[in-house]
Amino acid sequence: MSEIETSLIGFSRGDASGDTFYASNPATGKELVAAYASAADAEVDRAAELAEKAAGSLAGLSGAEKAKFLRAVADNVDGIVEDLVTIVTSETGLPEPRVRGETGRTSGQFRLFADLVEEGSWVDARIDHAMPDRQPIPKPDLRSMLRPIGPVGVFCASNFPLAFSVAGGDTASALASGCPVIVKAHHAHPGSALAVGHAVIAAVKSCGLPEGTFSLLYGGGRTVGQRLVKHPALKAVGFTGSRSGGRALFDLAAARPEPIPVYAEMSSVNPIFLLPSVLSDRSEGFATGLQGSAVMGVGQFCTNPGVVIHEKGDAGDAFKSAYAELMSQAPASAMLHSGIRDAYGDGVTARSESSNVEVLTDAGAGRGAGGCEASASVFATDARSYLADASLADEVFGPSTLLVACEGREEMLEIAGALEGQLTASIFGEPEELAEHQDLVDVLETKVGRLLFNQFPTGVEVCHSMVHGGPYPATTDGRSTSVGTGAILRFARPVCYQGFPTERLPEELKDENSLGIKRVVDGNRG
Amino acid sequence: MSEIETSLIGFSRGDASGDTFYASNPATGKELVAAYASAADAEVDRAAELAEKAAGSLAGLSGAEKAKFLRAVADNVDGIVEDLVTIVTSETGLPEPRVRGETGRTSGQFRLFADLVEEGSWVDARIDHAMPDRQPIPKPDLRSMLRPIGPVGVFCASNFPLAFSVAGGDTASALASGCPVIVKAHHAHPGSALAVGHAVIAAVKSCGLPEGTFSLLYGGGRTVGQRLVKHPALKAVGFTGSRSGGRALFDLAAARPEPIPVYAEMSSVNPIFLLPSVLSDRSEGFATGLQGSAVMGVGQFCTNPGVVIHEKGDAGDAFKSAYAELMSQAPASAMLHSGIRDAYGDGVTARSESSNVEVLTDAGAGRGAGGCEASASVFATDARSYLADASLADEVFGPSTLLVACEGREEMLEIAGALEGQLTASIFGEPEELAEHQDLVDVLETKVGRLLFNQFPTGVEVCHSMVHGGPYPATTDGRSTSVGTGAILRFARPVCYQGFPTERLPEELKDENSLGIKRVVDGNRG
Repeated sequence: MSEIETSLIGFSRGDASGDTFYASNPATGKELVAAYASAADAEVDRAAELAEKAAGSLAGLSGAEKAKFLRAVADNVDGIVEDLVTIVTSETGLPEPRVRGETGRTSGQFRLFADLVEEGSWVDARIDHAMPDRQPIPKPDLRSMLRPIGPVGVFCASNFPLAFSVAGGDTASALASGCPVIVKAHHAHPGSALAVGHAVIAAVKSCGLPEGTFSLLYGGGRTVGQRLVKHPALKAVGFTGSRSGGRALFDLAAARPEPIPVYAEMSSVNPIFLLPSVLSDRSEGFATGLQGSAVMGVGQFCTNPGVVIHEKGDAGDAFKSAYAELMSQAPASAMLHSGIRDAYGDGVTARSESSNVEVLTDAGAGRGAGGCEASASVFATDARSYLADASLADEVFGPSTLLVACEGREEMLEIAGALEGQLTASIFGEPEELAEHQDLVDVLETKVGRLLFNQFPTGVEVCHSMVHGGPYPATTDGRSTSVGTGAILRFARPVCYQGFPTERLPEELKDENSLGIKRVVDGNRG
Repeated sequence: MSEIETSLIGFSRGDASGDTFYASNPATGKELVAAYASAADAEVDRAAELAEKAAGSLAGLSGAEKAKFLRAVADNVDGIVEDLVTIVTSETGLPEPRVRGETGRTSGQFRLFADLVEEGSWVDARIDHAMPDRQPIPKPDLRSMLRPIGPVGVFCASNFPLAFSVAGGDTASALASGCPVIVKAHHAHPGSALAVGHAVIAAVKSCGLPEGTFSLLYGGGRTVGQRLVKHPALKAVGFTGSRSGGRALFDLAAARPEPIPVYAEMSSVNPIFLLPSVLSDRSEGFATGLQGSAVMGVGQFCTNPGVVIHEKGDAGDAFKSAYAELMSQAPASAMLHSGIRDAYGDGVTARSESSNVEVLTDAGAGRGAGGCEASASVFATDARSYLADASLADEVFGPSTLLVACEGREEMLEIAGALEGQLTASIFGEPEELAEHQDLVDVLETKVGRLLFNQFPTGVEVCHSMVHGGPYPATTDGRSTSVGTGAILRFARPVCYQGFPTERLPEELKDENSLGIKRVVDGNRG
């Protein structure tokens, strides 16, 4: 019997008293040899207590000190890329180039946040000087800035074992704000989690930070995550996953004696609206592009385009046939784990059985040697049927597209108005057509975090302007983004200091502005 | 029988089919003659539907157009100040100078938000230019900014019939963001609400805005508010009031199929920590200042200082006696309505009956001719008893102070660490003492929205740096402020535009920056 791997509770390990579970290789269907023990209740509590203890020290770090730490994490993650190639591919079936690319994205995110906190202006520093002679009453000296919210729980995504997992965007942005982080590993890639967890802890140690800065918890079921979210020390939660999982955590957090924010990034069908010229002038190119976006990563991206809204007619029929043909040619590929493959199969079956839905490309039931392979599927319906059956608006997570034919722009607008919240919506057409459809833009803007023109939604750039968020059920908090530098704002809260002596103020709020950050001083933005 | 006043549903009135209620004059205890009808279900729905319809137009307004509207509201409110003096004093018992002052604060808030949106930088505009030649994949053009969240429900406070009511800070900040507002009037001052409601609607009309921009709903019980919060068109809620009321709305909003944010400002005891020099060097001045802060507005401020933590000893005993004496001299005054007076009586009785609590100043049972008068009360206990009895941390809304004697700084720190979330905490002492007590500052910072040194917490300056918020139960969303320009951020969400033609971008995101706002362009803050 091999050794059992346990949670990383600060600088120590769990005791393997909890239930054990194993990961599988989706390419082969074989269980991997390493056993992982779910964290015991006491281990969850210990991680939370350590985090609570560490919070004060982390909140006291300067931007430069945090940047040093974030860059140490980035270097350590880059340093294990060869290990990650081996471990991640075996646990997820993702191809090697994807693992290398995602590793770079992961360390890149940490470096971007390092730059952000080193520069320092993100804290939204505001200064209002005292006016002791103001009538009828003096104005006091008031200064405010964003401060870390406290210990953050992060739930790893299944579909990004690196960039949205142990050292993913949630962890990077929470640490950047100055919050301790407790990660709940995804049960499907525990070995990947362990390798990255060690990399983070090595950075905690090399930078001399308190051990409660970071912990990594294993859990085969929901118990560990629930206990973590209910712990009084926890002040916020980041999650990427299913709608039911995210909503359950949101409900749990809202029902606490002290409710805490949950940033759950959940489900999105990322609708694409085609203005008339697309099908008349460049149908083929669009279909090829759509196919690439729809099957990328076996459709396992939160930004996968699941619904395409187009006009009825000959051009629409030709597009449907061409797209169905393209999708039928896409090779079957292994999904991330059997649970995701099961859900895809269920979703495809349900859609096939919906009334007024035509199956254009049949995914088939084949699952390959490992039991996780999936083929692409394409369905078609008309606007009236789509609007009448709420289940057609549900996400089928995987390489599946639903084509919805409209009578004209009024029906297109009606569909836009009926949409649930989405991460993205895309419009394809000519610029003049976009101008004529400003009403569509206006409606879609209220439904999404990101609105694209003539581009496919897969591919989420990590930068200052990115909004990877959107109204419910895309996320549980439509005021936020989980990708890009804006993600740090989720884990911060404003604090105001009134009448404080200069030497007791944070550097960011002293008159001299030694950090050279942008501030609002007496109403003037510097 | 006089006419029955009804809700303002956009530009029309309700039909008086709902239950009627009356306000009372707390100074006389007499019911006022005007009857008000609670909004019927259909009226609540109609207000929500009008707001939903108006949202698009409001979202399309420029900052300059919004500023014009906000200033029109301010002018209209200023224009009815003489009416307000009559109506508000009769409904609340507040003295005339307070009504005049609060009117100025109310219009001043609107003008401050007008300046903010006219200047325009608050939208946090971010631009990342495309890099078509980037390897391995091109970088798309991405631009993001804050956009209005949608229709907002605002619940009026009892204790600020103007500045936190119909045209209060919640309404001003939501309108400034570009959100339609539906106000639920407070049942204790319906006439004040009506006067201000007409002033707002006159501005909506004079600026040519859609009628759904603003509605005012009456409700004698909880039905109207609950229906409003559950309406699918509503996207956020602002509330100022009791902990139980705020939590109930929060729970309701969190349980919606589409949860929405609730910004409820609820309860706070605003603790004051005395470092040793205060009682040894300036006990008398401190006691006088504290008394002024504690009885101001008959203690009916959310920032009323309810708990004072001091060191044991002769100086502490002397301070207790002196403060009790000062508080016993404060004249009894009418509270805002009999419900608040009842709650004050209950709170004082419960505290008097707590074990290990000494009554230093007895509030007495007298309620004056109108039945709403209250006298100040002072209680004393020691740190161990305070920490052992959670009810002693509860807010007694009114002119009541609990003095808590500690053995030394360790006990003081322990109390700070055990605090629930607060709007404010204050520290009094010499600057050198503050430096020696950085650990106390660090703990308090995690508990409050605003931290004061040598100043009393009553008096909330409306400015850029103000944070009137704090962790639960001070508010249901500790990431926010309900006073000051930061309040607008509660009613906005980021939206990203990818690959949009320049002419279809909002002005704020075009390269030329015709508005001259501060932005983040390719990572550089302008």
